[in-house]
Amino acid sequence: MDFIKHYAALVESELELLDFPLKPTTLYEPQRYILSGSGKRIRPILALMGCGLCGKEIRKAIPAALAVELVHNFTLIHDDIMDQADVRRGNPTVHRRWDGSTAILSGDGLFVQALLQLQRLDPEIDYKRANKIFLDGINRVCEGQALDMEFENRMDVTTGEYLEMIGGKTAALLSVSLQLGGMAAKASDEQLEYLKQFGESLGLAFQIQDDLMDVTADPEKFGKKQGGDISEGKKTFLMVQTLGFCDPDEREWLTGCLKNRPLQSEAVQNVLALYEKYDVIESAESLSHDYYEKAIHSLNLFGDSNYKQDLQQLINYLKRRDS
Amino acid sequence: MDFIKHYAALVESELELLDFPLKPTTLYEPQRYILSGSGKRIRPILALMGCGLCGKEIRKAIPAALAVELVHNFTLIHDDIMDQADVRRGNPTVHRRWDGSTAILSGDGLFVQALLQLQRLDPEIDYKRANKIFLDGINRVCEGQALDMEFENRMDVTTGEYLEMIGGKTAALLSVSLQLGGMAAKASDEQLEYLKQFGESLGLAFQIQDDLMDVTADPEKFGKKQGGDISEGKKTFLMVQTLGFCDPDEREWLTGCLKNRPLQSEAVQNVLALYEKYDVIESAESLSHDYYEKAIHSLNLFGDSNYKQDLQQLINYLKRRDS
Repeated sequence: MDFIKHYAALVESELELLDFPLKPTTLYEPQRYILSGSGKRIRPILALMGCGLCGKEIRKAIPAALAVELVHNFTLIHDDIMDQADVRRGNPTVHRRWDGSTAILSGDGLFVQALLQLQRLDPEIDYKRANKIFLDGINRVCEGQALDMEFENRMDVTTGEYLEMIGGKTAALLSVSLQLGGMAAKASDEQLEYLKQFGESLGLAFQIQDDLMDVTADPEKFGKKQGGDISEGKKTFLMVQTLGFCDPDEREWLTGCLKNRPLQSEAVQNVLALYEKYDVIESAESLSHDYYEKAIHSLNLFGDSNYKQDLQQLINYLKRRDS
Repeated sequence: MDFIKHYAALVESELELLDFPLKPTTLYEPQRYILSGSGKRIRPILALMGCGLCGKEIRKAIPAALAVELVHNFTLIHDDIMDQADVRRGNPTVHRRWDGSTAILSGDGLFVQALLQLQRLDPEIDYKRANKIFLDGINRVCEGQALDMEFENRMDVTTGEYLEMIGGKTAALLSVSLQLGGMAAKASDEQLEYLKQFGESLGLAFQIQDDLMDVTADPEKFGKKQGGDISEGKKTFLMVQTLGFCDPDEREWLTGCLKNRPLQSEAVQNVLALYEKYDVIESAESLSHDYYEKAIHSLNLFGDSNYKQDLQQLINYLKRRDS
């Protein structure tokens, strides 16, 4: 983790410098609260590294880094309401600590603050284009969340639809983070395209791995109950694949379970047996690996630099993570 | 109303041209639904008139007009969740027609679409500055909504605080609409300042009048139950004033009522008697009138034109409105 300490420290110190007004407290206190949580800060770190990779001092990407971190936290506040989640990073979610209305409103406000951060980009940066990249990315995040919600009651989700969903929910903002870092460095169109592809592949790899970790990770370290996604009936890569492979009897049983969420532990064990039977854990490992390889390929289109090495280390760190 | 038909028709036809994707339906159907409701379209009309007032063809302000109408509808979707409102313009609110999660998400998406509209401004327009005006305005709308929520449990709201609240909830976006119309016309800094002041005064006048209409308007035409704000215990201008004027016994009774919302009809009648006793209806009429006069004063800083005449007529129309 040493290789990202420098970036993470810069992100934290810049987050601490944000001076949201004290009042109205209903609007700004939840914004401060969610940002003070201990996130991994992957997105702002990617923005800084993306800038460095394109040859400019990483401080130039601070507005971009803050914008993506703020918008990420906006999506967390609203997603937690939609998912009725009680806890986020060990703390009560905003809508539990306060209430639903406060969470909706402070999330909206945090989105505005994210957009205002981009105003701080150097004057010579093409602000309009940077904003377009940002907005298109956030719209994809919204689309991904909509698909995720629609999948809750669908038993015929295809792998292609699943990839489109995580492409929006996870990959879009990772890709935007890198691209905005590139924009801050006045990257060429070619470099921006490489950054985009790098982010997309990294995001898909990361999310498929996340799906995997629900069944393979040490629950102590991962911070989530093993099989939690199964119990909630989430349409993860593993579930979507299994629904596609299983025979009519298994399918009838499984769709029955998925319509009566949450699944009890015996049902979760039976689902895990189906995952074994149809080798979907291996498929997921293989697909995640392939996307990490694609990400490395895109990264290798850039010339050597410390930032490239740091990004390679970041990929290795994410691949081997247990939380 | 003839004088605004031309602007309203342009707004409607441009709204119809918006081609949101068909899928995911969860995201885009509610966006189409709320926009198809029969709003007064005051904000986009102000954007068009503001552009004309500054000497440019009003079509140049279409992206600005759409941006303010879209963002207004985003705030309606989210406000209706927070207010637990069942009906909006005669139709079920988005969170009733669908559900809370769909309403949160489609609202977020509509905000993104509003921001994307500004990308369509002519290339010679200072997009960064237009965006800053827009974002600062939306942040004030969020602050106004936060204050409104905080006022629910406060019995010591001052007139100044009330004006700050409606300045955010209502005046900010009217002012932004005019300013963005001005930006689309490449207005001078001086003109933009006049438009800003015009919008602020108009917004305050409009909202105080709205508070008044809760007790003075014909419920049939107004579309809301008479005294509805009183029953809900809203901190309108009338209520804030009355809480300030009334004697200790009245205050104890009134604050007791306001803590046990909704107020029953007998209590509402007693509140109306207090409004009579302390002449707060006349105070509100007088203050609303003064702000309309201030708006007219700002408007008169512009040279004569058809657009100026139309804006004067719009002020008269709003002053005399019964719905």
